[in-house]
Amino acid sequence: MTTTAITDITLIDGRGGAPERGVTVLVDEDRFSAIGPTATTPIPDGARVVGGAGRWMVPGYVNGNVHLLDAWMFMVGPGTIEYLARWEGRYVEVIEEAAQLVLRNGVTTVFDTYNAIEPVLAARDRINAGTSAGARIFAAGTIVGLGGPFSADFHFIGQQAASRTFVNRIDAMFEAGVGHQLSLLPRNEVRSRVRDYLARGVDMLKIAVSDHIVFTVGFDRSCQTFSRPVLEVMFEEARAAGVPVLTHSVSVEALDTSVDLGADVLIHANYTLGQHIPDYLIDKIAASDSYAGLQTVHHEHREGLERVGSWAATLAGEPYASNERALIRAKAKILMNTDAGCPSKDHLADLSPAEREDRPWTIGGDHFHWTQSIVEKGMTPLEAISAATLNVARAYGKDADIGSVETGKLADFVLLDADPTADIRHLRSISAVYQAGVAVDRGALPTTPLVTAHPA
Amino acid sequence: MTTTAITDITLIDGRGGAPERGVTVLVDEDRFSAIGPTATTPIPDGARVVGGAGRWMVPGYVNGNVHLLDAWMFMVGPGTIEYLARWEGRYVEVIEEAAQLVLRNGVTTVFDTYNAIEPVLAARDRINAGTSAGARIFAAGTIVGLGGPFSADFHFIGQQAASRTFVNRIDAMFEAGVGHQLSLLPRNEVRSRVRDYLARGVDMLKIAVSDHIVFTVGFDRSCQTFSRPVLEVMFEEARAAGVPVLTHSVSVEALDTSVDLGADVLIHANYTLGQHIPDYLIDKIAASDSYAGLQTVHHEHREGLERVGSWAATLAGEPYASNERALIRAKAKILMNTDAGCPSKDHLADLSPAEREDRPWTIGGDHFHWTQSIVEKGMTPLEAISAATLNVARAYGKDADIGSVETGKLADFVLLDADPTADIRHLRSISAVYQAGVAVDRGALPTTPLVTAHPA
Amino acid sequence: MTTTAITDITLIDGRGGAPERGVTVLVDEDRFSAIGPTATTPIPDGARVVGGAGRWMVPGYVNGNVHLLDAWMFMVGPGTIEYLARWEGRYVEVIEEAAQLVLRNGVTTVFDTYNAIEPVLAARDRINAGTSAGARIFAAGTIVGLGGPFSADFHFIGQQAASRTFVNRIDAMFEAGVGHQLSLLPRNEVRSRVRDYLARGVDMLKIAVSDHIVFTVGFDRSCQTFSRPVLEVMFEEARAAGVPVLTHSVSVEALDTSVDLGADVLIHANYTLGQHIPDYLIDKIAASDSYAGLQTVHHEHREGLERVGSWAATLAGEPYASNERALIRAKAKILMNTDAGCPSKDHLADLSPAEREDRPWTIGGDHFHWTQSIVEKGMTPLEAISAATLNVARAYGKDADIGSVETGKLADFVLLDADPTADIRHLRSISAVYQAGVAVDRGALPTTPLVTAHPA
Amino acid sequence: MTTTAITDITLIDGRGGAPERGVTVLVDEDRFSAIGPTATTPIPDGARVVGGAGRWMVPGYVNGNVHLLDAWMFMVGPGTIEYLARWEGRYVEVIEEAAQLVLRNGVTTVFDTYNAIEPVLAARDRINAGTSAGARIFAAGTIVGLGGPFSADFHFIGQQAASRTFVNRIDAMFEAGVGHQLSLLPRNEVRSRVRDYLARGVDMLKIAVSDHIVFTVGFDRSCQTFSRPVLEVMFEEARAAGVPVLTHSVSVEALDTSVDLGADVLIHANYTLGQHIPDYLIDKIAASDSYAGLQTVHHEHREGLERVGSWAATLAGEPYASNERALIRAKAKILMNTDAGCPSKDHLADLSPAEREDRPWTIGGDHFHWTQSIVEKGMTPLEAISAATLNVARAYGKDADIGSVETGKLADFVLLDADPTADIRHLRSISAVYQAGVAVDRGALPTTPLVTAHPA
Repeated sequence: MTTTAITDITLIDGRGGAPERGVTVLVDEDRFSAIGPTATTPIPDGARVVGGAGRWMVPGYVNGNVHLLDAWMFMVGPGTIEYLARWEGRYVEVIEEAAQLVLRNGVTTVFDTYNAIEPVLAARDRINAGTSAGARIFAAGTIVGLGGPFSADFHFIGQQAASRTFVNRIDAMFEAGVGHQLSLLPRNEVRSRVRDYLARGVDMLKIAVSDHIVFTVGFDRSCQTFSRPVLEVMFEEARAAGVPVLTHSVSVEALDTSVDLGADVLIHANYTLGQHIPDYLIDKIAASDSYAGLQTVHHEHREGLERVGSWAATLAGEPYASNERALIRAKAKILMNTDAGCPSKDHLADLSPAEREDRPWTIGGDHFHWTQSIVEKGMTPLEAISAATLNVARAYGKDADIGSVETGKLADFVLLDADPTADIRHLRSISAVYQAGVAVDRGALPTTPLVTAHPA
Repeated sequence: MTTTAITDITLIDGRGGAPERGVTVLVDEDRFSAIGPTATTPIPDGARVVGGAGRWMVPGYVNGNVHLLDAWMFMVGPGTIEYLARWEGRYVEVIEEAAQLVLRNGVTTVFDTYNAIEPVLAARDRINAGTSAGARIFAAGTIVGLGGPFSADFHFIGQQAASRTFVNRIDAMFEAGVGHQLSLLPRNEVRSRVRDYLARGVDMLKIAVSDHIVFTVGFDRSCQTFSRPVLEVMFEEARAAGVPVLTHSVSVEALDTSVDLGADVLIHANYTLGQHIPDYLIDKIAASDSYAGLQTVHHEHREGLERVGSWAATLAGEPYASNERALIRAKAKILMNTDAGCPSKDHLADLSPAEREDRPWTIGGDHFHWTQSIVEKGMTPLEAISAATLNVARAYGKDADIGSVETGKLADFVLLDADPTADIRHLRSISAVYQAGVAVDRGALPTTPLVTAHPA
Repeated sequence: MTTTAITDITLIDGRGGAPERGVTVLVDEDRFSAIGPTATTPIPDGARVVGGAGRWMVPGYVNGNVHLLDAWMFMVGPGTIEYLARWEGRYVEVIEEAAQLVLRNGVTTVFDTYNAIEPVLAARDRINAGTSAGARIFAAGTIVGLGGPFSADFHFIGQQAASRTFVNRIDAMFEAGVGHQLSLLPRNEVRSRVRDYLARGVDMLKIAVSDHIVFTVGFDRSCQTFSRPVLEVMFEEARAAGVPVLTHSVSVEALDTSVDLGADVLIHANYTLGQHIPDYLIDKIAASDSYAGLQTVHHEHREGLERVGSWAATLAGEPYASNERALIRAKAKILMNTDAGCPSKDHLADLSPAEREDRPWTIGGDHFHWTQSIVEKGMTPLEAISAATLNVARAYGKDADIGSVETGKLADFVLLDADPTADIRHLRSISAVYQAGVAVDRGALPTTPLVTAHPA
Repeated sequence: MTTTAITDITLIDGRGGAPERGVTVLVDEDRFSAIGPTATTPIPDGARVVGGAGRWMVPGYVNGNVHLLDAWMFMVGPGTIEYLARWEGRYVEVIEEAAQLVLRNGVTTVFDTYNAIEPVLAARDRINAGTSAGARIFAAGTIVGLGGPFSADFHFIGQQAASRTFVNRIDAMFEAGVGHQLSLLPRNEVRSRVRDYLARGVDMLKIAVSDHIVFTVGFDRSCQTFSRPVLEVMFEEARAAGVPVLTHSVSVEALDTSVDLGADVLIHANYTLGQHIPDYLIDKIAASDSYAGLQTVHHEHREGLERVGSWAATLAGEPYASNERALIRAKAKILMNTDAGCPSKDHLADLSPAEREDRPWTIGGDHFHWTQSIVEKGMTPLEAISAATLNVARAYGKDADIGSVETGKLADFVLLDADPTADIRHLRSISAVYQAGVAVDRGALPTTPLVTAHPA
């Protein structure tokens, strides 16, 4: 049995308590085996010792909402056809590349909540089996009720510029039988479709409670994708399959419905298209078992977006920031959910520097951006760290294994050179990342770059 | 007191019973005062006598769903800007012109279920007060939850070709504070918006249970515009205001929801985007108090549409025709609802002859088309006549005054030269139309043609 | 015979010479009959005397390029369908309204260089015959080789939002048989088409030497509409018909071609899409008999356009301003050509205040804007006044009758309250306008407002 | 020295004479060394003997107009982004694949007349040097005056769906400094741009006399890209560089201009957008030194296109077929020019079977289609064979080396199993292809399939 001992570290274990100085953490194989004061924690013979003096240990970061094929780009459009054509047949590799980029930056687990089901499950299986490097993946596949990249939910105009054959093939990969056409089916047919879908082995079920067509029809409306009875059918099936339920909502009423139904995770709960979440609903969320994912933008980036007149500035402003503050104030259970992906270099090159730098939707830096932003909105640094680690694990029911530095859990952790409670931005000061007890060779990631290598 | 006596008529009173031959009908002022066998029904002195031998009397036709400003055109797009610009400031006149065209063809009352609220109420008030000629109007104003003519619900691309100022002005006229933006509001705000709207004096409340964006995003999805609690709020407000509720639905689940909520009228209940209505729901509708409006196309027109490859052929085919048949078979309460309007001559000129002739969505011939089609789907001629008269009145709670030839009701009736029970198309064989006891000067209608006079 | 005497005026006669003080001008009927020092110019008995002391007399302004139906709007698109639908059947009135607005502001003659041929000739005939008020009109009808308002030359996307029937009807009105389809015809067919067109009675022939599709395909290309032999055919026909030739060009090569062919007027000669006119060509123009129309924007307006990010700012900047300066410096013969029309109020309401105020393409103020701008580019005020009066008349061969205050010419003149040579903006200080010897009732113009009255 | 002897063959040498039976053809190294009656033509010792009895020998086919990256697809649009993104960085390989597909079908030389200059020249150099297999390539690079794949000349709407960065990068590859922006430049700048372009080593200069924006603005206009003086500048530069000049024209006047200027090849001379070529111009072409490329569609394919309502049917009908017949009748010098490329499988999958089968614009079968079609239009089979071999070589000035079976020329030839003079479709009955004396391993082509292998 291989043992690693990190000695004399200052430990922030993810559960929200004050940092403990002078701690020794032992790792046997892939899990934490002992945690205690250095003085009283013996180091077994033959252990590999890592000196932690002057360093901070935090749990491996956990991102509750990513799209390893860059769904953000599908949403805004330009670049989508290129990206999906260029890498067609290699999506598994692209997904792995994204998972490697996040791991390089300390994220040891991600929850991918919209993707083409086959490649994301294949990449999940490869990474989780150790065949390929990368952040551990839990995957929802598609969002039930949403269409593929060329549907009205995403890059609708792309249909006019791509071959019909390609559009159909790609959209079908994403829709996986539970796409937007589901909205037309009677409840019994929905039940059997969702049951079949769950049987494919997804780790969670994400439901489009709100529609997703704002980029096609405008930001001044949002409908409910499904009737209440149909939503109940979906929840029943997910419960029967033993997987957590995530909801996509962008309106007050869809958010309320999601809480009512007992969603485990409310993705981007602060997005309620131009409306403040009413007080009653803030309280209802806080009193519920649902975890609220937030999307958040710090003021520096917001100011940059405003300066260049980017539409994304609206995402960074009111009422969304107020919604975040209200949920934090009400002590709602909050988790990190960045919606980030790995965009093509061409897509990024289209942006102005103000949009590109410190972009909250680009994988790699997104979680640093998020934790900085959420502290700005009222969390303490310790709360922010829990939101970016243990809360995510709990929300998804994975806290038996991950999310905190506790004996018996998988030894996912990050060593920092500077104190993140003094300045949350010190989460960037990574000196080492361990995943399941193994030191990550960060310099070697990504292992076989595609997206990040194009164009040369 | 003026009395008119129609003698020796064959009476089809609208209640579904067998025609009675040799009937004399007396009209005092605006109402029927006596109905009986000619032999036993004395004609008062001074009465104006109309010989009815060889003729049939049916109630004035009642259309449960029209749009006197042509909303069908808004939906398919081209022509909309022209029409709305050309007649801006004169919409009241255009609405009256449409109401006059239908009256000329025997329709004595219409229910207008999507229109700009101010002009349609103004036209209603003018006609109902006798200031202007035309079919009696009951008006819903807009459909709650739908946007105006240039929103994604109708001619969205028109936004790119019209001035923003015009678009906003026109859309606001239609949306009347309860447009598509309502979908974003919390339920309490919805309540006060709907209450304010009802206070403007509409005759019924029409709710978009389904969204209305198929022409923008495609026919392969349909969302629920509102959450169930919001829908309940709307129904409560309509009930409190004492007006009937109509629902717009185009999917199985939205139809089910509408029945669940106790809608008075299910507009185009057979439209369930490509799906057969499940048997359970057919039975549920039949067992409910809701009246099902149907849209129907007879086979000759359908064949014409198919021959020229018109998209409208899909509306005429399966599964919609099967849905109609199933509802008829299940003895659901059915009413005539044609969705017709008065399109611009340019819009019609764009169509092929096969699309233009006997078009079910052009006011004037629409109800003839409808009755012919519905008999084709399984109704007897007598049932079809009830569906086009008394059923509409009952559905909307207006049967104390209109819908059948009964003593005490308003004397709206049509005299025919041929037997409609022998061939339903004989409803066209109109020799006279009476509205509230007054013979309509059909040749003088429309009184001040605009739409029908352009271009000269 | 009615005589009017304007006494003691300071005269700027349009020929470029220094102002003469203390002049008396006599007008008999519609023409100037005597001009001389007040002391030596006797006033006939019975003459109506207008005291001119403290005032300046300039010739009635003459605009060498307007579109009385607002073609500028057709070019940028939004608003076009509305405008053309709203006033269809009344274009003659709209054209008259525009002609009245310019007359109110001192412009006694305009050259309309793109319009629907029938209404513009009808309005011309009505005004020139005195049946209707307005600036005297000379009209080219269409631009040979350009399509109508819904062709790719103007509001191409409008085809997707308007009925095909309307589009075809309106486009045909403008194209008049010599539209863009002419580019496909062999030279002999072009000849007969142009001959037929000239026979309709236009006052000049305007030829699209450059194409006009920049708003459809972008500003980074410009082709020649016709081959050189075809252009020669057109010139021959115009010469045979005795009318001047105008050329539309937007590239260096098309401008060169136009000069080569001996065009009488080079419309917007400074517009050479992003290119400086080469020195050789500046000299060639100056040495030629061609008059160069310029479009010009003064710096205040340009700065406003830049501030709001209007695309129109590019028209106001380099290299166009340099081209203007170079042509002025080279002593090219320059005339006022504003391209202005009478836009709908909705179209103007879409603009920001910076774009709307002092807009060079809105009729009424356009010539004030132009003269101010051209002085800014290097002309003296006296030269600017000639460019806005006599030069236009000479270019179009109308200087026997108009363009200057000379005995025998039509008595078109403006009386000013402030000295325009001190500040060219004083051309706005109009106290009276005379057209053909008659004092214009400026307050009554327009006589029957349509465009300017909508929406109320 | 290796010698190959093909004995007892029936020879059709490409020069138009009657087939000669019983011929022996000797090939030394890469060239024909002797041709004569078998009886009198001794076979050198050690020669490799190929028995030709019962076979026909024709020159290797030569295609005067192909686009080895499929420009036809760029023109109609859908599929373009995918194709260019998928293979970016590998265009050389795609071009080689196309060249291999044509070689497999007997085409030993192609003239590529629109392509990205760098990859097409690289592929040319690789193939011509023997580094890679494929039809010998002569390349024009771009068409001077046309933009890249995402300009208005091709898939303009693609700009809305692709990243700006990608669009600009790809368009610049194609435009190579002589794109559509050239239309704005003064003639001297054009001269230096064209001179620089020629210095890059293209084999011919292709000039856009007509514009190429029909797919963006419609088929009812066509302008001249350049003024006459600019065209003359281009011809001068091409002459100075010693390369032939090709012209792109789609109107009568542009065709006339091209002949006037002395173009070597008039690409698709029969395309004159809806107009019959006037008799005077037919005669002028026939009397000139210019070779007329024709595009032609045989009646079976035309009927298929018409049946499915394909727009391409217009290309196959009148007046283009009449133009072909007139040019053939007038004895104009005609060459095969198919415009074919290697489309993506997705692009082809979008088409109906009627469009896809025997498609004249898909490489591989295009020349069989062409020769069949041109015989249908009036050529004898022998004339058709010359048009598809020697005429092309002569037009481009390559007849010293290729185009016919003559002593001293490169030994490019095809052996057929059936008599093409009996039925021109027998050109498909290929039993062997030789290129420069080497038997082509047809079964191994393409050597490294990309386009034809995707999707698997």
